[in-house]
Amino acid sequence: MDSDTTIKSLKDKVAKFRDDRDWKQYHNAKDLAIGISTESSELLDIFRFKSLDEVDKMFHDRKKLTEIRDELADVCIMALALSQRYDIDLSKSITAKLKKSAIKYPILKSRGSNKKYTEL
Amino acid sequence: MDSDTTIKSLKDKVAKFRDDRDWKQYHNAKDLAIGISTESSELLDIFRFKSLDEVDKMFHDRKKLTEIRDELADVCIMALALSQRYDIDLSKSITAKLKKSAIKYPILKSRGSNKKYTEL
Amino acid sequence: MDSDTTIKSLKDKVAKFRDDRDWKQYHNAKDLAIGISTESSELLDIFRFKSLDEVDKMFHDRKKLTEIRDELADVCIMALALSQRYDIDLSKSITAKLKKSAIKYPILKSRGSNKKYTEL
Amino acid sequence: MDSDTTIKSLKDKVAKFRDDRDWKQYHNAKDLAIGISTESSELLDIFRFKSLDEVDKMFHDRKKLTEIRDELADVCIMALALSQRYDIDLSKSITAKLKKSAIKYPILKSRGSNKKYTEL
Repeated sequence: MDSDTTIKSLKDKVAKFRDDRDWKQYHNAKDLAIGISTESSELLDIFRFKSLDEVDKMFHDRKKLTEIRDELADVCIMALALSQRYDIDLSKSITAKLKKSAIKYPILKSRGSNKKYTEL
Repeated sequence: MDSDTTIKSLKDKVAKFRDDRDWKQYHNAKDLAIGISTESSELLDIFRFKSLDEVDKMFHDRKKLTEIRDELADVCIMALALSQRYDIDLSKSITAKLKKSAIKYPILKSRGSNKKYTEL
Repeated sequence: MDSDTTIKSLKDKVAKFRDDRDWKQYHNAKDLAIGISTESSELLDIFRFKSLDEVDKMFHDRKKLTEIRDELADVCIMALALSQRYDIDLSKSITAKLKKSAIKYPILKSRGSNKKYTEL
Repeated sequence: MDSDTTIKSLKDKVAKFRDDRDWKQYHNAKDLAIGISTESSELLDIFRFKSLDEVDKMFHDRKKLTEIRDELADVCIMALALSQRYDIDLSKSITAKLKKSAIKYPILKSRGSNKKYTEL
């Protein structure tokens, strides 16, 4: 469960899956970034041409929800594989990036707004 | 650090960032999936037209490495936001998906191969 | 103008741009496919977190419209570069694909529906 | 054939396909941009984890080549649908964008280089 699972333990699972198949040779950063991108598109594809109402209803449809969870998991698996392979600490990277984004999107200026930081 | 950071604690950080800015109204699944996809493309864009050697060298260049970490973090932040918003347990989803992938890619058949499961 | 411009003439322009810069060496199919994908994400990024109303209004905003046209053009330039480089006739490919899609989406079954062909 | 097919004639074919199915209601710019992006990922996915040699060989494999042509065609169909729906002249947009890119990538500075314009 997310409340007691560390990033490290997920990285280990993903690395074991890869090494069981001797796939490290294919897991260079460029192909893993391609993987993150193509998996994220498979997730997005579920919502293509669907209204926001239809999208929300998918989360109450057992089969669609499983599809969404599976595609989201695939994105995460690729991201974990990249960070594991190149010794990137994801927790630190996420925390550091949130701090940078907090500067780009100051609370007072960006509160309630969907403008990009270049338009604020 | 990844060794002692839970997924839940990262979800909380991302949710706080969003709520501080009153952005929940924009965070529907479709736009978050768009977010995961566009952020993953920004990561991939770093490697466009670069050889695998040039890509590997980027991880020894402090400035490039920060760029890579930042873009990878953005992908993860969007994935955490989506899972937090729609009550998806990422750890369970990842573990479940690895089990499905293990069936699609049996060790004996897929070991050392870069073939897609449809080609195995 | 689109009414009197052939695909071939656009391919020629794109090839000239590439050859003026001696870029053929970088234009392998994989990196060009990355290019098509990352450029299409830059287009999509313009619409991220925007409502359909806000998106439609962008087409009446001179600056936004130019941005949209530029990003769409970048996608096309990469697609033209790939097809030119690998001798793919785009007109024939598009016509052939429309015929296949017409079989996957028969008019009677798919008329007025946003279902994927697997759901029809 | 590309040597005698105008962009306009392809736009017309794509619009007829859409209108035969009464799909204009779903063809807003945001979903069409999603479409361009997800189709381009399907093209890219063909090359994932493949070496440049393996990628080049695909163009001599009849079945793979058809797959590549089909996915590239899907990208173009979505791009044509977007430009047709929102009255964007693709030829003008492409020509205009090439001029802007020529300024960002001056021949003397960028010749033979795979650096991004920000690094030149």
